[in-house]
Amino acid sequence: MDERFQEDPYAYSAHLGFRMVDWAQDYARFELPMAEHLENRHGNVHGGVHASLLDTVMGYAGCWTGDPDQRQMCLTLALNVQYLSRPKGGLLFGEGWKTGGGKSTFFAESLIKDETGELIAKGTGTFRYRRS
Amino acid sequence: MDERFQEDPYAYSAHLGFRMVDWAQDYARFELPMAEHLENRHGNVHGGVHASLLDTVMGYAGCWTGDPDQRQMCLTLALNVQYLSRPKGGLLFGEGWKTGGGKSTFFAESLIKDETGELIAKGTGTFRYRRS
Amino acid sequence: MDERFQEDPYAYSAHLGFRMVDWAQDYARFELPMAEHLENRHGNVHGGVHASLLDTVMGYAGCWTGDPDQRQMCLTLALNVQYLSRPKGGLLFGEGWKTGGGKSTFFAESLIKDETGELIAKGTGTFRYRRS
Amino acid sequence: MDERFQEDPYAYSAHLGFRMVDWAQDYARFELPMAEHLENRHGNVHGGVHASLLDTVMGYAGCWTGDPDQRQMCLTLALNVQYLSRPKGGLLFGEGWKTGGGKSTFFAESLIKDETGELIAKGTGTFRYRRS
Repeated sequence: MDERFQEDPYAYSAHLGFRMVDWAQDYARFELPMAEHLENRHGNVHGGVHASLLDTVMGYAGCWTGDPDQRQMCLTLALNVQYLSRPKGGLLFGEGWKTGGGKSTFFAESLIKDETGELIAKGTGTFRYRRS
Repeated sequence: MDERFQEDPYAYSAHLGFRMVDWAQDYARFELPMAEHLENRHGNVHGGVHASLLDTVMGYAGCWTGDPDQRQMCLTLALNVQYLSRPKGGLLFGEGWKTGGGKSTFFAESLIKDETGELIAKGTGTFRYRRS
Repeated sequence: MDERFQEDPYAYSAHLGFRMVDWAQDYARFELPMAEHLENRHGNVHGGVHASLLDTVMGYAGCWTGDPDQRQMCLTLALNVQYLSRPKGGLLFGEGWKTGGGKSTFFAESLIKDETGELIAKGTGTFRYRRS
Repeated sequence: MDERFQEDPYAYSAHLGFRMVDWAQDYARFELPMAEHLENRHGNVHGGVHASLLDTVMGYAGCWTGDPDQRQMCLTLALNVQYLSRPKGGLLFGEGWKTGGGKSTFFAESLIKDETGELIAKGTGTFRYRRS
């Protein structure tokens, strides 16, 4: 990806281990190595991790401006996650796409796969742009 | 709450800072102090934190057995979150209730308030019981 | 309810059989008699009927103005429905509550019971106000 | 489509005007002509119509058996709908795909376009198979 758009991770994304891999018009992709601090009560990745990753890639997908000096922010209004499968590999990839909307709100969808291609989760979201 | 049911936090809940406050038939309550490691790109609590907390309290609400030696586990099938407001205080309380279901799946709902009583987020979820 | 606020059913609500029972600040209640034209492939009420009823009561809940001559309209952005049980009776009651929001968007939740008190479905929605 | 799998519309789908166009492994497609009886309070297609169509195509997508004499039924556990745009044409096409699941539950996603290609709505759902 174009290095000018590579943002430093903010506090929460650094805390979980998210890394931005790609960011473009209506699209964002992050990766997350599986790690012990992501595990739930029975030793799998906690459902909140998937939700966090899906929310993140959808938010970035809708906030691309094409100008690193002009940062667009957004708020999540509603988030839906479906948990389809469990990872077989050790790395999660989250991808998000803006699917519609207008000046004030936008819609997005997203998925998480691992490096074996297994489809782990899908998400949709409704977002509102923040006025700067 | 009855100390016999107080579970040690698992890895992810410890990593975010969740603390179990109450757990009973069809009900669970956790608290989470706001902290810098929970912040998103614009300095607010990341939407994934709310999703994680709501998913957690709903899962526990449905997995109460009344016997500390008999642990019931579940998987989230689908999770929905609405983001209603931003915290005014410094402590988040998540509460979850089981609302229906049968032997194999259950439904739950949940909310997050802060210590000022501000309603921050609401969630619903569909879960599946794991066979032990 | 105050007769001045009793609206004639619009085309779709008449087609399904909805009847407005109550409408007040942040609240609406409709009833729907079960009928053969609402049945799905296996003879139960179609899930789309519940979704239609929940969407309707939530929209009305958020569009109350307190003035029959000033009609507020809204658009649904996102709708979530959980199907908890099947009716035991012959009449469905849908209730909706506005739960939050601001000038441009609002949040709502809703439920459907039958006359035996059985909880049939629950819904949440995110809506946008239409400018007149 | 293979005429052997063409089912007569059931009561609710006939009442709204649904027509099955295609049905295959993990896939279903229905069409719905816009008509006055589908209109909401402000003269557009009611959000419940989209929900009904999305629920229908996802249910069929997951219930394909490849044998007209062996009918699989399902129940919707949870349904999510996003409303992206309003139709520009006069005919709605709903398509559904099964995206995952196992023996007892399945996941699906869906969309509605009109004949101009405008993307009107998207849906996801979680379903449970009925035992015959």
